[in-house]
Amino acid sequence: MEKLKLLNERIVSRVNANLREFDFDTGRFISNAIEYDKLSRFYCFYGITSHHPIDFYFKHASMAGSYFLGKCAVNQSIIYKSDIRGDELKRKGDIMDQDNPLPLVEDETIVVNSSLLYKTLVHSNSHNIETPEEFTIRNTVSSHYANIHGSTIEGCFLGPFSTIDLMNLHSCIVGEFSYLQAGEFFHKKIDPGVIHIETKDFRFQYRYRKEEIDKYIGVNESSQPRGLIQQFVRGKEPEFERLFKVVDLPPIQAPESSAVNRYAVIKGDTRIGENVLISQGAYLEDAHMGDGSNAQENTYIIHSHLIGMNITAHGGKIINSEIGQKTFVGFNSFLFGKQNAKLTVGKGCIVMPHTIIDIECPLQIPENHIIWGYITCEEDLENNTISIEKLNAIDGKQTIGKMIFSGQGKIFINGFKNRIEQILVANGAYCDHDEDCRGHAQDDQQISFNTLQPYRSGKDEGLYPFIRIRP
Amino acid sequence: MEKLKLLNERIVSRVNANLREFDFDTGRFISNAIEYDKLSRFYCFYGITSHHPIDFYFKHASMAGSYFLGKCAVNQSIIYKSDIRGDELKRKGDIMDQDNPLPLVEDETIVVNSSLLYKTLVHSNSHNIETPEEFTIRNTVSSHYANIHGSTIEGCFLGPFSTIDLMNLHSCIVGEFSYLQAGEFFHKKIDPGVIHIETKDFRFQYRYRKEEIDKYIGVNESSQPRGLIQQFVRGKEPEFERLFKVVDLPPIQAPESSAVNRYAVIKGDTRIGENVLISQGAYLEDAHMGDGSNAQENTYIIHSHLIGMNITAHGGKIINSEIGQKTFVGFNSFLFGKQNAKLTVGKGCIVMPHTIIDIECPLQIPENHIIWGYITCEEDLENNTISIEKLNAIDGKQTIGKMIFSGQGKIFINGFKNRIEQILVANGAYCDHDEDCRGHAQDDQQISFNTLQPYRSGKDEGLYPFIRIRP
Repeated sequence: MEKLKLLNERIVSRVNANLREFDFDTGRFISNAIEYDKLSRFYCFYGITSHHPIDFYFKHASMAGSYFLGKCAVNQSIIYKSDIRGDELKRKGDIMDQDNPLPLVEDETIVVNSSLLYKTLVHSNSHNIETPEEFTIRNTVSSHYANIHGSTIEGCFLGPFSTIDLMNLHSCIVGEFSYLQAGEFFHKKIDPGVIHIETKDFRFQYRYRKEEIDKYIGVNESSQPRGLIQQFVRGKEPEFERLFKVVDLPPIQAPESSAVNRYAVIKGDTRIGENVLISQGAYLEDAHMGDGSNAQENTYIIHSHLIGMNITAHGGKIINSEIGQKTFVGFNSFLFGKQNAKLTVGKGCIVMPHTIIDIECPLQIPENHIIWGYITCEEDLENNTISIEKLNAIDGKQTIGKMIFSGQGKIFINGFKNRIEQILVANGAYCDHDEDCRGHAQDDQQISFNTLQPYRSGKDEGLYPFIRIRP
Repeated sequence: MEKLKLLNERIVSRVNANLREFDFDTGRFISNAIEYDKLSRFYCFYGITSHHPIDFYFKHASMAGSYFLGKCAVNQSIIYKSDIRGDELKRKGDIMDQDNPLPLVEDETIVVNSSLLYKTLVHSNSHNIETPEEFTIRNTVSSHYANIHGSTIEGCFLGPFSTIDLMNLHSCIVGEFSYLQAGEFFHKKIDPGVIHIETKDFRFQYRYRKEEIDKYIGVNESSQPRGLIQQFVRGKEPEFERLFKVVDLPPIQAPESSAVNRYAVIKGDTRIGENVLISQGAYLEDAHMGDGSNAQENTYIIHSHLIGMNITAHGGKIINSEIGQKTFVGFNSFLFGKQNAKLTVGKGCIVMPHTIIDIECPLQIPENHIIWGYITCEEDLENNTISIEKLNAIDGKQTIGKMIFSGQGKIFINGFKNRIEQILVANGAYCDHDEDCRGHAQDDQQISFNTLQPYRSGKDEGLYPFIRIRP
């Protein structure tokens, strides 16, 4: 274990050096989160398909319980129960920046250096035009159920259930349950529960109250997550353990055009439509997945019906709900209907990332609305939703409840709608058995997993040997 | 599959080129043995421990269902359900040849090139002083349950259940159930059922009758094995399949000083003593394994008692038998006692490799005897055993039944006894919790397995990507 502990210390000191202006010690989080014996007990996976370029490069690192797909290079890092999914990485010859149309000189690779990722999701489709061949995570500590989505991250600490979406972050601390999609940040400390989306054309801002954060996803004095969402997620963890104990699971009933990952939990009366993608780490119980819908990593869909063409972004939780046609549910949203208090979201809606809906009475949200923030009853809808039509018309600043929007609503809406279409296409939602429209739902079916093991004893215990896998 | 089929053709043409003087087509064996769909269905293993140097190099090859340990490099080859176990490879600095005491310049590696190994066991402890850093298998096709034991093999075809032990073989065909340990052979065709052990000091020869070979391990017109031993082995294969379907098996009750590989079948009232080694692919049912005994790969120990310090060499089968203290059972021996016809072998005996004892009445073999050939009843003992004392005294030529011995009996006996001691030491039979006497039984306990996967579809189907694993 000596070498692993040394590696841990090295990562902490590097990240702390990046964050020294904030007098912040990532060691507090790590020392209470990491159970060293688990690092030497769990294997990791590398997915092999004939559709995704293979290149797995691993050196002086620990990667217990983690899942890798696509081109990944990891060095001097600890990746614990994380998903590193590189299936949207750009390829050699792709043109990323239309203003400067130079093709990529080689396939893009996710490169993780001197970082500790704890139950973190890293998804590709990176946006940083400065380094098109490398999607970089460096000198960073990231905690429970954080999402790093196509974002360059250097010298940062990401709190539990935070999301960094399509941006660059340098030497920042991100509080728990905050969502950022705002171009580039340097040397900032972002409070917990902040939703901040910003481009040159608009800004969308929302901030949870401290007591709300404390109730759903605060951290305790040991820097560990606590609250309702954390409890919910922890309660489901044992269900995933079974998936790791058997080699071959009985296949899940699903159409040929759909992919159900073997590391997803599928329970009860769950039905899978055409062109559906169920990713690893998804949890489905009595879930009706309409045609073209998907459940991404760390999503939970329970006693719910997704009508069709629904995206459930990483970490989205949908319980006792009906989600209308092409309604989008953003990262880490927590739609918490009850058995006697069903949530119905109309078609064409956008549930913004990190939205919490926790109701005790049935609630209907009309179609074509944008939904954000904290909603517990019908009265909250006024301050937490707006029709797409109305938002489209905004040009300037408008405050609705605690949400502040400024800029051009039309560009905000168009940006979202385009992104939803891109995700549906990438996931293969429109495939209809057409080879040209293949997406993850089709390409991820014939996947097999290399399971890779750490040293189980000696001074290298918990570390993995050097591993390279390529075509 | 195209690439895999092309690889297969390339291997066949290379081996045939080496064997053209015999007008021998290895393609006949291969075309009837290989089921292509299985090559893309089974994963392979690479064992990771902190005691064995790690270096796994795999390029343009298929290795379905195979097991690797230690330093292995495989190129342009098909390794199907084989064991490649490199835990006795020499290390950098070791001196192999006392007459020419140059230390190895690097760790020894098993190197397999342009070969097809089908359910073959490759074990290290190689002897070829010409290439101390490389244990070579090249341009070779090897069939069901063949043993390649520390032998350099080039341009050969090895028939089912044949054993090549500590020698070099170039452009040879080895018939089914033949055992060779004879220095170096070039361009020879060895008939089925030949036992040939030869050094400059002695020669031991035995040959089974054709009808005996046909009964126990002949080949049919499709070049596939048939007969009693093949049936016996096939009948047990389903028991092994279960081991591949689960990730964690309940641990087998065994003392701390013993290792039971998780890919061994352990059934019934099986008891494991101290310093015992049970290798992958071993099958134990109602087996009492006395202290310091071992069951190597592809051994079967059923309703039997091994008193202690017993070696059961690769492929040995012991049924309804009691094996005395420090009695050695050689490669592929078939000791087939029956419920009402128990076989008892006294202490200090050497059951020569490829011995068949198939009895219908109880049989006792006295202690300190050498045992060989085909024994069905007490009368056969006269022509198939000799006391160690008597053999020790031979200096010249002596024929006993069909066995011809010439040379110095003392050197033959001493050679065998030394080798038995070496194996016991290597396996950790004398460990007694003493760190200096650790062997496989102790070092193989903390083993974990990387499972590596082939491409499941496309033109690469059944092949594996390039894989390198090293410290």
